[in-house]
Amino acid sequence: MTRVLYHSWLDAGSRLVRIVLAEKSLEARLRLEKPWERRPDFLRLNPAGRVPVLVEDTHIFCDSIAICEYLDEAHGPLTQASDPPKEGATGPNSLIGGDLIERAEIRRLMGWFMGKFDHEVSALLINEKLLKRFLRMGEPDSSAIRSAHHNLGIHLNYIDFLAERRHYLGGAHFSMADACAAAHLSIIDYFGDIPWDRHLAARDWYMRVKSRRSLRLILQDRIPGLTPPRHYERPDF
Amino acid sequence: MTRVLYHSWLDAGSRLVRIVLAEKSLEARLRLEKPWERRPDFLRLNPAGRVPVLVEDTHIFCDSIAICEYLDEAHGPLTQASDPPKEGATGPNSLIGGDLIERAEIRRLMGWFMGKFDHEVSALLINEKLLKRFLRMGEPDSSAIRSAHHNLGIHLNYIDFLAERRHYLGGAHFSMADACAAAHLSIIDYFGDIPWDRHLAARDWYMRVKSRRSLRLILQDRIPGLTPPRHYERPDF
Repeated sequence: MTRVLYHSWLDAGSRLVRIVLAEKSLEARLRLEKPWERRPDFLRLNPAGRVPVLVEDTHIFCDSIAICEYLDEAHGPLTQASDPPKEGATGPNSLIGGDLIERAEIRRLMGWFMGKFDHEVSALLINEKLLKRFLRMGEPDSSAIRSAHHNLGIHLNYIDFLAERRHYLGGAHFSMADACAAAHLSIIDYFGDIPWDRHLAARDWYMRVKSRRSLRLILQDRIPGLTPPRHYERPDF
Repeated sequence: MTRVLYHSWLDAGSRLVRIVLAEKSLEARLRLEKPWERRPDFLRLNPAGRVPVLVEDTHIFCDSIAICEYLDEAHGPLTQASDPPKEGATGPNSLIGGDLIERAEIRRLMGWFMGKFDHEVSALLINEKLLKRFLRMGEPDSSAIRSAHHNLGIHLNYIDFLAERRHYLGGAHFSMADACAAAHLSIIDYFGDIPWDRHLAARDWYMRVKSRRSLRLILQDRIPGLTPPRHYERPDF
């Protein structure tokens, strides 16, 4: 089977799918797409015009969450709906957790990061710090950046809260919740915008996540003309 | 078991969960929440401060997609990950489809409506036409409304495209894709903003969906001081 992933720089959904592919030891050929160019062949793959898009032979998969759910169903056993919620109902390969309650909690956090965090932090910073530069849309808007930084502080407090109570954000094990959070935070960290020294529990969690091969792979990406801070790729900060 | 759904007026996620509950013949006590009041007891249920929130006894479920995935896993059999993709791998109770490919397509459309459509159409119209009024935030911004209407036309074209090829948006059967689309379109239709006569395939699909008991229930809601157009609740327009 040929597997191709259309992805883009500093795109959280693309990073998420790459993390999940690596966690499941699935190989994919990466193809860099600049969705803002609206390439007709790409729009035929995904009329939404967005990365990531995963192509396996003749099957086309779009939407980062839908892709991750697919990869988890195809490469990690599921609970039976008829089973009562219990610990360990799925094998170790599922990244969405064991029982119904755990799965709902992990999916709540997937929605939190891919929806709320994206809207309140990532989309603003990526627009101001990356897209405006590439599309020559003028100077960054400092009030948008301030607002994103304010929201980021609130989100980091919440990550602290979770990380003080759990080894990983969704529970005892690394899950799709960590993958979603790390996809976003690794982008904000590329800009050097995370005040890690004020969020030590979040920082400890991120160090645990950064030590995984799946994260190390995406932290090797470099955007031409934009250098990340020194600690960016170091697993121990 | 007690089941309570915290929901809000003209909130697509709330409507989606109510449709899914009704499709699965699950009873829930509805509790109207105004998330903008940021009631402390509600924020303890969902730190994201958003509706819908589903409470079953002591279990709290947040995020509309996570809630729907939970309800589908708890009340509709799933495919086995070890099964090869095939038709009819799940029972008739799953609203996310039978095989892996069908499930990925339905989830793509769930993401389309709860993400892209929400961002490009619903969020703009709800903000301008509903929230500004309730929160006394001043006059609606006509350029935001124009932009939402422009985007709506493009989305309706895409619904036409799907409805010309499939009986329901995600395939041959009513699915979570239809529920997500109907949750959003029913809100826009409350405002009387859908040019149905220019989108006949979408209109035929919406008539099929409107005839379901699950839709009829939510179409009975009335927002004080805001009257929907005459055709709003009529299954035949």
